[in-house]
Parts: sequence; C-alpha cells; structure tokens
Amino acid sequence: MAEDEARIRQLIEDWVRAVQARDLDVAVADRTDDIAMFDVSLPFEGVRGTVDYRDTYRPFFEWLERGAVFELRSLEVTAGADVAYAHALLRCAQPEEIAKNPDLRLRLTLGLRKENGRWLVAHEHHSFPLAAQEGDAA
Amino acid sequence: MAEDEARIRQLIEDWVRAVQARDLDVAVADRTDDIAMFDVSLPFEGVRGTVDYRDTYRPFFEWLERGAVFELRSLEVTAGADVAYAHALLRCAQPEEIAKNPDLRLRLTLGLRKENGRWLVAHEHHSFPLAAQEGDAA
Repeated sequence: MAEDEARIRQLIEDWVRAVQARDLDVAVADRTDDIAMFDVSLPFEGVRGTVDYRDTYRPFFEWLERGAVFELRSLEVTAGADVAYAHALLRCAQPEEIAKNPDLRLRLTLGLRKENGRWLVAHEHHSFPLAAQEGDAA
Repeated sequence: MAEDEARIRQLIEDWVRAVQARDLDVAVADRTDDIAMFDVSLPFEGVRGTVDYRDTYRPFFEWLERGAVFELRSLEVTAGADVAYAHALLRCAQPEEIAKNPDLRLRLTLGLRKENGRWLVAHEHHSFPLAAQEGDAA
C-alpha cells in the first residue's frame, strides 16, 4: 500500500500548509461528512460533522495569527486498501512557549477511509499530554 | 467488514475488563511489537515497543488501585481488510473527580493491523482535553 501511504502523507502535508496559510477551505477539505474530532480543547466528546468541525478553526486561526508556530515534525502512515490511520508529532506553540520548552509537541492521530477512490479523514484526535498542561504548554 | 469490526470491538472490551481486573498480561496482549502509544502523560513523543508500553501500566494500575473508575462509555470501529481504527470515550477518574464533573471523559483512539489473521493494536492515543486539566480532571 506504498502508493496509498504516499497519497495520505501528501494529504496531511497539504493540510499543514493550509493551516499555516490560514486557508480555511483547503484546511477542511478531504474530510468525511461524519467526521468525529477529539480537539485539543473541550468538549470531552469532541465535535462531529463538517459544520461543527469547520467552526473549530476560527479560534485556532486567531491563536495562530498571534505568531504561533505550526510545523509537522514526524509522521507515520499505515494504509490498507480502504481504511488507514496516521500519527504525527507537531510543533504547535507560541514562540515564548517554545523558548521555555523546545520539546513541546502536539500529538495527532487521524483515521481515514477511501471513498470513491479518494482518501478522506473521518477521525482526528489532537492532544497535549497531561503534565504539559500544568505550566508551560499551549 | 462487520465481522472484523465485531472482533475489534471484542478486543477492546476485553482490554477494558483486563484493566479493571488489573490483569497486566491480558491488558498488554494483542499489541504489535512496534506499538507506538501517545499516553495521557508525558513524554511528548509517547512510548514505543512492548517493553516500554508494558511499563506504563505500573503507575496506571497503582492509580486504579486507589478506587478509580474505568468504564467504556462509547466505541466506534472502522475496519478494512487488514487496517482499522477505533475511537472511544471512557469514564476514567477517581470518584471525587466524577462527583465534581460527571461529564469527564478520557478520549481514546486506536490504530490496528491484521497480522496472520489476527487483529493487533499498533497505535494508541489517550488524552484529556486541555481545559479539563486546569482544575477538575484526572
């Protein structure tokens, strides 16, 4: 499934670039209608569906606008014929947070389905680990 | 892939029961040798491989021993022929935390591969959302 893994890697790299450019339409493309996202923030049960998913980008882009860094640092993709998952580490923080803690990373896991020959993200899980919240994390 | 989804659901339900019983050998079964886990806690990059993965259960079981609740509240599985992912919400907290915040949930995402006809967990991502850390969460 090397070709599928390459296509998914490209999808994720394109998404990172769209976020960096704060291009909302590109950032929310390639998602299933029933996407379920566990976001960095509340609510506990996450958000579901493209409308609520899109809404999460407003505060995120405002936070990026204040000078935050958003960089993909590692990515591993596992793809079958029509279901795949990927996990990644990103540098996602304001410069002063990075200065205090250069190792700070956002953890990201994606679940994907192939629909009509096209890979789409159906699940996202974004988080910072517990102790990172107590003091110096985003 | 209904049969595969049922088998994965069973695997996850069996894991929850093994954790509740603090049965370490059963809890760490059905994992790939190269498992990569983003844990609730640090380090940012998670742990990798069965030895380090197994080690994470020691502090977790000690915390459970103090009376914590660990219950599966929802689970959704998406399975292809040989790759799958699942996401779940669990009640995972001490009774006094639940009293303060009944909606508190642990978010869990799993990535799975089928090896020699058997589903194995190759990736886990456990987290609490950001604001839940600031005050009343586990």
